[in-house]
Amino acid sequence: MGFVTQIEKSRAEAGIDALVTLTRADMARVNATILSRTGSDVAMIPEVANHLIESGGKRLRPMLTLAAAALCQSPGAGHIKLAASVEFMHTATLLHDDVVDESDMRRGKPAARKLWGNQASVLVGDFLLGQAFRMMVEVGSLTCLDELSSAAAIIAEGEVMQLAAAKNLATSEATYLDVIRSKTAALFAAACAVGALLAERGAAELQALRHYGTCLGLAFQLIDDALDYGGNALQLGKNVGDDFREGKITLPVIIAHERGDDEERAFWTRTLDRGIIEDGDLATALAALARHEALAATIAKARQFGEDAIAALQVFPPSALRDALEDAVHFCIARAH
Amino acid sequence: MGFVTQIEKSRAEAGIDALVTLTRADMARVNATILSRTGSDVAMIPEVANHLIESGGKRLRPMLTLAAAALCQSPGAGHIKLAASVEFMHTATLLHDDVVDESDMRRGKPAARKLWGNQASVLVGDFLLGQAFRMMVEVGSLTCLDELSSAAAIIAEGEVMQLAAAKNLATSEATYLDVIRSKTAALFAAACAVGALLAERGAAELQALRHYGTCLGLAFQLIDDALDYGGNALQLGKNVGDDFREGKITLPVIIAHERGDDEERAFWTRTLDRGIIEDGDLATALAALARHEALAATIAKARQFGEDAIAALQVFPPSALRDALEDAVHFCIARAH
Repeated sequence: MGFVTQIEKSRAEAGIDALVTLTRADMARVNATILSRTGSDVAMIPEVANHLIESGGKRLRPMLTLAAAALCQSPGAGHIKLAASVEFMHTATLLHDDVVDESDMRRGKPAARKLWGNQASVLVGDFLLGQAFRMMVEVGSLTCLDELSSAAAIIAEGEVMQLAAAKNLATSEATYLDVIRSKTAALFAAACAVGALLAERGAAELQALRHYGTCLGLAFQLIDDALDYGGNALQLGKNVGDDFREGKITLPVIIAHERGDDEERAFWTRTLDRGIIEDGDLATALAALARHEALAATIAKARQFGEDAIAALQVFPPSALRDALEDAVHFCIARAH
Repeated sequence: MGFVTQIEKSRAEAGIDALVTLTRADMARVNATILSRTGSDVAMIPEVANHLIESGGKRLRPMLTLAAAALCQSPGAGHIKLAASVEFMHTATLLHDDVVDESDMRRGKPAARKLWGNQASVLVGDFLLGQAFRMMVEVGSLTCLDELSSAAAIIAEGEVMQLAAAKNLATSEATYLDVIRSKTAALFAAACAVGALLAERGAAELQALRHYGTCLGLAFQLIDDALDYGGNALQLGKNVGDDFREGKITLPVIIAHERGDDEERAFWTRTLDRGIIEDGDLATALAALARHEALAATIAKARQFGEDAIAALQVFPPSALRDALEDAVHFCIARAH
């Protein structure tokens, strides 16, 4: 995809290296916490949990918690357990998502449900969610607990909203953005916000970090949506057209459907709504997306959110951490390159 | 089943009426809270949640929280939200259990997953769990949060343990009791314990209520296990032999298998382990259970736990509430009558 600007490209080349470097010491403690908290006498629990946790995710969300806490000069060690909680919440969501989506692959490996069954995926997800709350309680900050427990409910609400909207090609862009604001961006927002809450910073910093997280999460999801029609399996850990085959209505499709003629709308209805997919349909879908510049429009929307995310950070004085959080935005968007 | 003593019978005839009466005013507030907290702009959420919540469960667990809080003279209104949280945790577990067990029926009605699909059951369960934690956070008691979040992790751990033990006829009675101590009794224990925690009572009362809940939960589950081979669909909301058909290893089977000869063990292996069930097999199973007095032994075990539950309550001075909590034990056990 050639929609990425030169500035984005150069900023993105640094990628999340700065964020990784600045949070490295804390991240080692988070990883140790994650490892110890997946431990259980029930052997299947660490097996399933670690299959996913060790499968090479970037751990972007816990890194955000660590960076936000550092940016707010949060004292103590609470941010370590909160970051681990955030990763557990994310992992639990992935385990349940795979069951809901009937996915075969996750991060380039067989989904846990293919190896251990749907049952284990549901239950180990529940276990991780329980452990996440346990760690939050140990930290003892009621404001952080409120932020993260609200996020847990909102994420699930967003997923149900998506389920209800699934197969509905008339889903508007606004409704779709509501869905991903809940199912994806809410955890990014909470991951960032707890940094300010733990440091007992004022409303301005809290709102800024929450807004940064929301906008970054939205950008992240939209780029994911675009990549699904333009990336490759190696990069994303899934195949081009997974969303298409699963009948998922994402922004690129919403745009192409809206801009398409009757024949094209009939095509989207047959493939995504009725689930009748024949040889060559993915190529037809890709051609329609290209004709209506639907991927470009999706990436443009992501870039807008990225700009909002960066603008939100300006409430903080310049620092290496702030730069690193800005780079994370560019990195997310430049994945579409 | 004729294993219930005359005393149990007369105590049980009062049933949980006293408990219902003593908690009626609070329970009305809990029900209103439950109703408002299943609300969501996403229509599917209240639909699925209320299908189960309104399906005529006894709400024993939240009643226990209310009774324990009253017994400890807990001030304020925190017990209302905690009781609602307990019911949400229970409902979430049921929704996920039905997916895990591939159940068709729950409380005499089609399971939610049969009406809305596994996807909605998983996600609405997650939503309810999130809402449960939100309410607990609003109450603001870190000790209660600790008790209930630990229970959430332990319940899931117990379910995974059961999954791992499933099909394993060599499961010992001790292992099985560990499973149900986690998957069933942990929530009963936490539901009771938060009453003492909210009132900031001392260790003696806390331990007593936790132990009462654990033993009541164990007794409750064992009677359920026995009823599955001897009750009727109307009473339990499921059919005789559901556990058998699902290949669940419960205490009656563990006992019959242990006491059986080679031929009988081969029968249990074929039906429960390998899942090959033919016409007449349920009758054969029932005959084997009767021959080895496996149901009587299971109920005897339940009665032992019931006695422990009642003994634990004696740390509290005599009162109508204490009597009602004792009656609840007799009620649970006499269900086997």
